[in-house]
Amino acid sequence: MLDTARLTDEQRLDWLCLIRSDHVGPRTFRVLINHCGGARAALAALPDLARRGGARRPARIHSRQEAEREIAAAKRFGVTLLALSEPDYPHRLRMIDDAPPLLAVRGNMAALAPPTVAIVGARNASAAGMRFAERLARQLGGEGFAVVSGLARGIDAAAHRASLATGTVAVLAGGHDHIYPREHIELADAILAQGALVSEMPFGHEPRARDFPRRNRLISGLCAGVVVVEAAKRSGSLITARFALEQGREVFAVPGSPLDPRAEGANDLIKQGATLVTDAADVLAVLRPILGAAVELRAEEPEPPASGAEPGAGERARIVALLGPTPMPVDDLVRLSGSSPAVVRVVLLELELAGRLERHGGALVSLV
Amino acid sequence: MLDTARLTDEQRLDWLCLIRSDHVGPRTFRVLINHCGGARAALAALPDLARRGGARRPARIHSRQEAEREIAAAKRFGVTLLALSEPDYPHRLRMIDDAPPLLAVRGNMAALAPPTVAIVGARNASAAGMRFAERLARQLGGEGFAVVSGLARGIDAAAHRASLATGTVAVLAGGHDHIYPREHIELADAILAQGALVSEMPFGHEPRARDFPRRNRLISGLCAGVVVVEAAKRSGSLITARFALEQGREVFAVPGSPLDPRAEGANDLIKQGATLVTDAADVLAVLRPILGAAVELRAEEPEPPASGAEPGAGERARIVALLGPTPMPVDDLVRLSGSSPAVVRVVLLELELAGRLERHGGALVSLV
Repeated sequence: MLDTARLTDEQRLDWLCLIRSDHVGPRTFRVLINHCGGARAALAALPDLARRGGARRPARIHSRQEAEREIAAAKRFGVTLLALSEPDYPHRLRMIDDAPPLLAVRGNMAALAPPTVAIVGARNASAAGMRFAERLARQLGGEGFAVVSGLARGIDAAAHRASLATGTVAVLAGGHDHIYPREHIELADAILAQGALVSEMPFGHEPRARDFPRRNRLISGLCAGVVVVEAAKRSGSLITARFALEQGREVFAVPGSPLDPRAEGANDLIKQGATLVTDAADVLAVLRPILGAAVELRAEEPEPPASGAEPGAGERARIVALLGPTPMPVDDLVRLSGSSPAVVRVVLLELELAGRLERHGGALVSLV
Repeated sequence: MLDTARLTDEQRLDWLCLIRSDHVGPRTFRVLINHCGGARAALAALPDLARRGGARRPARIHSRQEAEREIAAAKRFGVTLLALSEPDYPHRLRMIDDAPPLLAVRGNMAALAPPTVAIVGARNASAAGMRFAERLARQLGGEGFAVVSGLARGIDAAAHRASLATGTVAVLAGGHDHIYPREHIELADAILAQGALVSEMPFGHEPRARDFPRRNRLISGLCAGVVVVEAAKRSGSLITARFALEQGREVFAVPGSPLDPRAEGANDLIKQGATLVTDAADVLAVLRPILGAAVELRAEEPEPPASGAEPGAGERARIVALLGPTPMPVDDLVRLSGSSPAVVRVVLLELELAGRLERHGGALVSLV
């Protein structure tokens, strides 16, 4: 779908304009490129698609000037915008169905190459939990793994600190100029020597609460496996573990006392089949055989190009009428509407660009 | 093999004399009964069998007077000697291949009836471990389970205490008049109200170190499952878990921090496939379906009666020559000796009664 080739500066600007435009997320980006044949053509087609999707006001297209300013500012900060199609783009991350078209990377790009493993856990971690995270990160670092985490307080910071010398990757929820929490600015700087900071968010973006769960899919997506060290029920680390499962990545969990609420999430993961970890050897035993193997895409199948399909007004109305606030499979929509898959995909794209459609994992869609 | 019927007083004396005689363990007891047709006949045959097995001195037969004294003393203490063939004998325990022919029971016999579950763990348990053992015992007791344990300090005592009201069973390593540790004499008395104390050892027997692992097979043997709460590596609780596996019983383990040495054994059990327990519901989910089902014997097959087989002197010497200090399968012995299985079994019985043979699990034998 997307060639593995370096983008020209012009193409990179097109990509940036497209992904920064209203209602264009990573999945829509792919659909648009497929539908229109390229980023520039997609940018040209976007206003019309959104209008046909019923947009209440004209779709906001990210301007070339804004994109140029972002690239220049990022460059001054030492940030490279890596495109999904380029050879340096982390190859495991490329396989997830909502991989960022452009990944902003600062530091040592080599840290993004496999083998990589995530170590994540509670912010209000126990001393024992942090000591264990450090030990594990040091051991896995010593075995040649880059340790990926989220730069949060507690387990994340412990994992980063213990793998500074061997290479660690922090995935940010905001732009590169908005390190969160502020107290970890020094840690972030220390990571840059051997490791890297990465973000899919625009330079200048201040992270909001909803950016963190979304960011977590990149932590798991970058790695062959995710180790959850301490995690309460309904914690962010469990979101990362769920993403890991959806992405076909290995999930590991460190057990704890049933009386410690910080162990509840990890113990539950083990009950559900995660590998129990008391030692780096437990992680290595599972990941070593995987690292040699080809990366497999477990998410939905890539859609065939849909260019040429042109829904009539009646067809569009019929498809919209079938949709509601409850997520439903695109396959059902095709079956129930009687339209061709290509036509359904175009209608969904239009609705999405009009801000009226939400895409969920597993090829589910709902009206906003 | 052994009828499920009440013994007469005379028969009970015969059984007691036989099991208390030199070199007669639970397995040999069964072989002898099979070979000779009954306990009285076995007692009569024993000296001759031992002599032919090469006993250096005449086999010591437990005297009728000693047996009568033990039964009388036990009776005064409120202890009943329950025979393997009798209907009150715990039916799961009856299925293990080294079930005690006579089980000395004090207290409420009904506590031995299913459902039963063992909760065992470290003597030097943590406060959290004991609190969890209490919670689990209370919950499982509330669900109608009798809680079986070993009356040791730490986890065992916590499990017993929390299930005093619902019924708990302590399996002793010594005779009923030798409660160990001494500080748990009061706890043992408290158990008698709703629960029971059981032992396979003679009245008057003071427990030695080697009696404890042997006792552990009865803890697992009485139960549908064993929960290990805190256990270091190479601890007695892991011996109980191993027995449970050999006996086809469920093994449960309570996780703990990898940095806590008391959690090592339990975490290892989970890695090996034990069910992770953070709540009584985890135990109930596995045991409830099992309790309805028939008990299955996973140990070796009962041997067919061998009466009548009479090894010649040359045959006996050939079989002995094949044996050594390394345990070997009885099947191999049959194959390599060219003798019939019945003849091999008689020779092994003779050697055993002469104190020259040791039987291991899985139908393995070795010379002492």
